[in-house]
Amino acid sequence: MNKKIQVCLTPALLPLYNIEDFVVVVIDIFRATTSICYGIENGAKAIIPVAHVEECAAYRNIECDYLLAAERDGEIVAGFDFGNSPFSYTADKVAGKTIVLTTTNGTHALHLSRKAKKIVIGSFLNLTAISNWLKNQHENILLVCSGWKNNFNLEDTLFAGALVERLKSEGFRPDDPAIAANDLYNLAKNDLDGYLKKTSHSERLKKLGIERDIAFCLNVDTTTAIPVLEGDMLVKL
Amino acid sequence: MNKKIQVCLTPALLPLYNIEDFVVVVIDIFRATTSICYGIENGAKAIIPVAHVEECAAYRNIECDYLLAAERDGEIVAGFDFGNSPFSYTADKVAGKTIVLTTTNGTHALHLSRKAKKIVIGSFLNLTAISNWLKNQHENILLVCSGWKNNFNLEDTLFAGALVERLKSEGFRPDDPAIAANDLYNLAKNDLDGYLKKTSHSERLKKLGIERDIAFCLNVDTTTAIPVLEGDMLVKL
Repeated sequence: MNKKIQVCLTPALLPLYNIEDFVVVVIDIFRATTSICYGIENGAKAIIPVAHVEECAAYRNIECDYLLAAERDGEIVAGFDFGNSPFSYTADKVAGKTIVLTTTNGTHALHLSRKAKKIVIGSFLNLTAISNWLKNQHENILLVCSGWKNNFNLEDTLFAGALVERLKSEGFRPDDPAIAANDLYNLAKNDLDGYLKKTSHSERLKKLGIERDIAFCLNVDTTTAIPVLEGDMLVKL
Repeated sequence: MNKKIQVCLTPALLPLYNIEDFVVVVIDIFRATTSICYGIENGAKAIIPVAHVEECAAYRNIECDYLLAAERDGEIVAGFDFGNSPFSYTADKVAGKTIVLTTTNGTHALHLSRKAKKIVIGSFLNLTAISNWLKNQHENILLVCSGWKNNFNLEDTLFAGALVERLKSEGFRPDDPAIAANDLYNLAKNDLDGYLKKTSHSERLKKLGIERDIAFCLNVDTTTAIPVLEGDMLVKL
């Protein structure tokens, strides 16, 4: 096998890739893709990612049974049911429901990746499930870090590095960003939370009072569902 | 002091920064900024960075005494005196001369940074000189990695990390890319050459037969000159 594993460190760099050649994993650890994995695991029928708050609001008129979730700058947008805290995606809230979701970074990355061969959603929650699935695809893999407002962030890069760690032994060839992500993951893996405490984003999230969310987002292998984009909806693979 | 040290991992991310707020260090380790440091150390009167090969060629008609240097994809462009190998920037070749230079990545990053408060040129060759100078500027510092064709590369990131290492103890606050660069540098610092051997760029450069250049570019503190942009020319600070 002679397939690549590459890491796109921010959505701003996506134009540098022939996205059609890749299976894409979208990563937004704090908190969009963690919550998507958790929601799909907990029986959400589908999650519809939309790029803009207005698009999300427009669904209110289409189908009143939808849950509308909108987050900007880490906070729930006024007038919406909820944002992207994983604690809003428990079974009692989402089972059997369709959620329309827009977030600062994660849904942006998803939309820019839509020409990929396939798009799946990754987080520490489904690390083993998604790496096992990727191993069997025999396709070039692009790990798309959602970052923070188009710039690099550490938490998404660490998770990309965790996936590279699992896949490089399967013969996938890493590029420079994948090597860097992998080395950073190996530095941080024994204490992800401690490592991330030194980041700026961690400070920002602490101010928002969501440390409980952060701890939740760093749980490894608590779910097995793999959300996949079908048409304009994320559903269980 | 409450100043920032930030790392822009590729020129494609420069639009995310208010470049006017920063003193910028442009970094293109293999090989443009290494050769610029070496050339200025060796008595070049000035180096004029230009973005396009045509611009470089146009200088032939202005002043026949200029040395014209053009590199694309790692090779000297046909019809030019030389490219960006540091061995072309020895005292016997450049002392007293003005060089017009265009390269794939380094001069591109320089041009995109031109609204900065000040632009200086960094490489492992002048690491201590440039960090000591930066410490005394009391300005926000942005380390601009030239990367490879607008994407991330490891060698520029490692050098950025070396500068962060020297400056963080002086109270400069790193952002996420600076933390990542610094951690990668600390992983690699005892064997930079060995660390970089695993990169894709290293493979590419090996094919070009320039391993001797690569080894030269990883020499630390062999020069003390700091090239600074004045108008459209790089001169000795």
